[in-house]
Amino acid sequence: MPVFQETSYNDRDLRVNPTKEPPLPRLTSQPPLTKGGEDEKYEVIIIGAGPAGMMCTLMLARYGLGDTIVCYDAKPGTLKAGQADGLQPRTLEVLKSLDVVDEILNHGCHMSEVAFWNPKRNTSSHDAPGIERTSFAPDVAVAARYKHEVTIHQGRIERILESNLNHYAPDCIHRNARLIDFQMDEVGDAEFPVKVEIELEDVVGAKTRKAARAKYLVGADGAHSVVRRRMGLDLVGETTDHIWGVVDFVVETNFPDIRKRCAIHSDAGSVMIIPRERIQGGGYLTRLYVQTTEEVSVEGLDQKDEGEKQMSKMRRGRITLDSILKQAQRVFEPYEIGVKDGTQVDWWAAYQIGQRMTPKFSLKDSNGEPRVFIVGDACHTHSPKAGQGMNVSMMDSYNLSWKLAHEIHGLSPKTAGPTILSTYEDERLEIAKMLIEFDTKFSSMFSGKVNSDKKVKGLTHDEFLKVFRDGNGFTSGCGIEYSPGILVQHPTTEDYPIHGDNYLDGVLRPGRRLLDSVVLRYADANRRHLQDDFLSNGRFRILLFTTFDLCDRDGSSSQAINQICQDLMPVFPSSTIELVVLHPFSERKFEWQDIQPSIKKYSEMRFHGPADEGLYATYGVSDRVGAAAVIRPDGYVGIVTSLQGISQVEEYLIRCLVKVQHDRLSPQA
Amino acid sequence: MPVFQETSYNDRDLRVNPTKEPPLPRLTSQPPLTKGGEDEKYEVIIIGAGPAGMMCTLMLARYGLGDTIVCYDAKPGTLKAGQADGLQPRTLEVLKSLDVVDEILNHGCHMSEVAFWNPKRNTSSHDAPGIERTSFAPDVAVAARYKHEVTIHQGRIERILESNLNHYAPDCIHRNARLIDFQMDEVGDAEFPVKVEIELEDVVGAKTRKAARAKYLVGADGAHSVVRRRMGLDLVGETTDHIWGVVDFVVETNFPDIRKRCAIHSDAGSVMIIPRERIQGGGYLTRLYVQTTEEVSVEGLDQKDEGEKQMSKMRRGRITLDSILKQAQRVFEPYEIGVKDGTQVDWWAAYQIGQRMTPKFSLKDSNGEPRVFIVGDACHTHSPKAGQGMNVSMMDSYNLSWKLAHEIHGLSPKTAGPTILSTYEDERLEIAKMLIEFDTKFSSMFSGKVNSDKKVKGLTHDEFLKVFRDGNGFTSGCGIEYSPGILVQHPTTEDYPIHGDNYLDGVLRPGRRLLDSVVLRYADANRRHLQDDFLSNGRFRILLFTTFDLCDRDGSSSQAINQICQDLMPVFPSSTIELVVLHPFSERKFEWQDIQPSIKKYSEMRFHGPADEGLYATYGVSDRVGAAAVIRPDGYVGIVTSLQGISQVEEYLIRCLVKVQHDRLSPQA
Repeated sequence: MPVFQETSYNDRDLRVNPTKEPPLPRLTSQPPLTKGGEDEKYEVIIIGAGPAGMMCTLMLARYGLGDTIVCYDAKPGTLKAGQADGLQPRTLEVLKSLDVVDEILNHGCHMSEVAFWNPKRNTSSHDAPGIERTSFAPDVAVAARYKHEVTIHQGRIERILESNLNHYAPDCIHRNARLIDFQMDEVGDAEFPVKVEIELEDVVGAKTRKAARAKYLVGADGAHSVVRRRMGLDLVGETTDHIWGVVDFVVETNFPDIRKRCAIHSDAGSVMIIPRERIQGGGYLTRLYVQTTEEVSVEGLDQKDEGEKQMSKMRRGRITLDSILKQAQRVFEPYEIGVKDGTQVDWWAAYQIGQRMTPKFSLKDSNGEPRVFIVGDACHTHSPKAGQGMNVSMMDSYNLSWKLAHEIHGLSPKTAGPTILSTYEDERLEIAKMLIEFDTKFSSMFSGKVNSDKKVKGLTHDEFLKVFRDGNGFTSGCGIEYSPGILVQHPTTEDYPIHGDNYLDGVLRPGRRLLDSVVLRYADANRRHLQDDFLSNGRFRILLFTTFDLCDRDGSSSQAINQICQDLMPVFPSSTIELVVLHPFSERKFEWQDIQPSIKKYSEMRFHGPADEGLYATYGVSDRVGAAAVIRPDGYVGIVTSLQGISQVEEYLIRCLVKVQHDRLSPQA
Repeated sequence: MPVFQETSYNDRDLRVNPTKEPPLPRLTSQPPLTKGGEDEKYEVIIIGAGPAGMMCTLMLARYGLGDTIVCYDAKPGTLKAGQADGLQPRTLEVLKSLDVVDEILNHGCHMSEVAFWNPKRNTSSHDAPGIERTSFAPDVAVAARYKHEVTIHQGRIERILESNLNHYAPDCIHRNARLIDFQMDEVGDAEFPVKVEIELEDVVGAKTRKAARAKYLVGADGAHSVVRRRMGLDLVGETTDHIWGVVDFVVETNFPDIRKRCAIHSDAGSVMIIPRERIQGGGYLTRLYVQTTEEVSVEGLDQKDEGEKQMSKMRRGRITLDSILKQAQRVFEPYEIGVKDGTQVDWWAAYQIGQRMTPKFSLKDSNGEPRVFIVGDACHTHSPKAGQGMNVSMMDSYNLSWKLAHEIHGLSPKTAGPTILSTYEDERLEIAKMLIEFDTKFSSMFSGKVNSDKKVKGLTHDEFLKVFRDGNGFTSGCGIEYSPGILVQHPTTEDYPIHGDNYLDGVLRPGRRLLDSVVLRYADANRRHLQDDFLSNGRFRILLFTTFDLCDRDGSSSQAINQICQDLMPVFPSSTIELVVLHPFSERKFEWQDIQPSIKKYSEMRFHGPADEGLYATYGVSDRVGAAAVIRPDGYVGIVTSLQGISQVEEYLIRCLVKVQHDRLSPQA
């Protein structure tokens, strides 16, 4: 199309560059901050740039704090090999809500199915000993937007998060910078009471120290967290007797299920197979977890002469790559497994299973306000068997960061009782406890034996399978339920509109995440994912299920819409609450002019009907009764009420958000 | 998981960085090249970095030519506003095969439905004149991986392509560099016969000139192409009388279908609505095409005193943003439309519809080998109504680039007759003719009127709708069919295994693209898209539909597999042909050991069964008879044979690829 005349206007870079989510409105004034020099001040200092620290930094930057935060990491760059590799369905949903999931989905390995292998039954005396497949099971058994785990290199996930961070706040990760110490010094500076000491290492290895202050400190500095130790907290728990080796490599094998997650119990020990992503050059990685205990303990150690601890240490020291691979080969019999010719092992490690956690995740100032937080491995460590580590760690940060941003931006109400920010510890401590409990059970069962008659030490295959299946709500992240508190309100009235209790399949439940559904957007007839209206940009949302009376201006739907748009929304700062409206009509039965104009005004592009059967039923909502729900900024249901209960919605939100005070609104908000 | 011992190995950056497709093997030696300086030499020089030039540069870089190509563009940066904005389903499939579609899908506007508006029927004398909706239609009516168009800023697409190019070959786009002239100079340098003269402009506007040589020159320099003119070619065709305005802005309107593609015929003229992407700040852009003819022609021009051409020029000069918006308002009556308060128009332009193309797309050297090519707007210009421009242009480059890379890498056989490279002109000239023909019909119908009795100038709404629908195979790109030639071979034998002729719904047809299907991968039980085994990395593929006799080692499936793996594949250079195998079993009926070992050896991760009903039927293949197809590197079917016809497959491939000559294989291949 050659045009003969054209005119364009300024600022069109905004049309070409990647989309950025809008920052949260800020009601507080941004304090004068200094970066660099002797007297640096930040609103938040994050220690550690692994998945938990990177997630925290990224979220805060996206909420609008990119200019006033810094993340110090002791290492020189992103992780190069090994360690965590599994992303659970709920984590994938969150990464999608940040627009960073595509590379992970496109290039990660999808684990769709698990194969369970056990000692061969001796049905015939001709049978060689060995293993046989007992059954397959779906890897993810609960309703989720992505019905599989993804495995991909942890360093790659960090790189993807950092690329996104660079759109919002380049240069806020400082590497080769190690936390030496911190202290609460309210006397020195009440507004920036956390004083940290950082050791910087330059390119030739010379070390210097500097001090910096922050309003808040987040310790994402791993299992040996300096922040945690300076808080006076230990990881408490047991280290068990089981020693495992883990190895990432391109395999050569005739084992048939090598591209599926496998739990192999053999008479020679246990192995877990985690298929991994395709790598440059075309090969596919495989991760093996190999139980090494028996293998190593028998060789030449005089057990009577050693104490238990010394024994352990010696046993661990015997583990080599070669011993791991040899033990794996024994477990795989009669199949063969080895390193593919022409390739070398990517990474290997040995670890001893332990489940430990701290009793607290935060440190309060003299006013009782939490000022220092720990997230991720600094709070809890456990075995890698259920693929939880990176997930729970990132979700700690995901839970913390919006509360921190709301507090700093002045969006959280000042109350006498517990604050929004204090719910971080309540909610995530509970999850950590569940994590430790599940991992203890799962790991010890995994390290046990299932023999040819399927029962040894009380463990049958069916029992193992049951733990695996029952745990799926927790391990997938999709069945997580936060307990009642400021942010989670269970029903108090008779007219609670939700039917059923199949919460894992989507029935609305305060404390659980809103399940995704495919919906049909009214304005443009697009098939959309409902979760895409709940991006992680820090806003609360009201999700309104209208009824067949939608076109009746005096009906319950219209009344609820009016109450929300005319009475409720104006109470709160603009751009802190969004309205998402669903309707139950499966065919096009009305025009815009037939329904409340507020829907078009507030929710033109967030107004959807069913794309398939059963939209309302999935959520336990009747299309004749309807419902209203508040969805928290992190996608969890806060409260559910009937269409007549909008005043409860307002009361809930008044606990979560400051009421509007126009004179406090800064011009840029 | 705190490990107590870990070891990792080198080169782990490859695990962290974005995935890159492997380059094509190169059988020719790479000539010594010089970059910079007085005597630059390249294997390919591309002129123009718009969508067509960027696509050509990107593809060549991905195929492995990143070090030996350069792209000169006269402009200082990527496009900032306006122009093309529509991506068709087939283009989206191609962008997916390059791993660059996600941002476009996530942030572009999906056009799912078209609304047709026509003059109001005078069913009652009370009715005000105006428009009413006659019907909706799906925007894409043919089978496709993406059942919608996407609209998004052209500059953004260019930026996305360039970001990907930077992974493969940073720095090969040179801006502020204008082609002045080129000539064929075989005497001066027979290997690099194309000599170009480039004018460089530095930051302060000072201009210098330099010469460079290339084996091949690609002109992607737009409708006013210097390359084309220096080839002695003109764009030939008509410029019609219709003048249209086009404007991109955030609308304020009560028109109900503003977020759908709309064809509006009113008594006051025609408008097309193209909804566009959400922009920074949260608004949604809309593009309007507004027929301005009547509006402008009537005001104060003495038609008798002016020649036709002078008339046109004066009429066009009268068009302003204001006149376009006023005319739009007249067409929208009784609805209101205007620029949203607080926003400004993004871009506007005026154009006169014309359909023109050149009779040739290449220039041959004295040996009859094509050395200079033109692509995109340099070959064909037309109206923007059907959203074709950017698509046909990029697909020109997509068609050319693999043929060029195969030729340069020594993968195409040397033959007496027409070469693989010469098929570019044959195939794309035909598409350009179809484009011109369709656009002529569609545009003139669009500029016509449909009045209240739905018929004026012979144009009824139903006729218009028919052209729209019938054209969908072409406009979507999914119905494109290349004619028989070296690369497209129609059946010659009696045992042709394909049933049916519903090619638009997927029935295999030489010359048409392979439709996507969801399949279930055997190795890992993943639901996958079949097209994801056909990435655009320059390889030919054999797609084998095995039958229920798969487990019979003497059956037709096993015999075909053996022929392909033992006889056929070794004939060709390694890594130039991939094997994709389908099986018809909807349940897990066999183990790896039950089938030909070649399948696991060559296609372990490209071996799939049906994920849903009807996989084989979609492609017109019987699950009792099977079939073999060769899919060209660009995703189009080359030949289809029965399982007994593998020798025809080999004959076809011998025409497309050199036979292996081990002594010619360079070590790095």
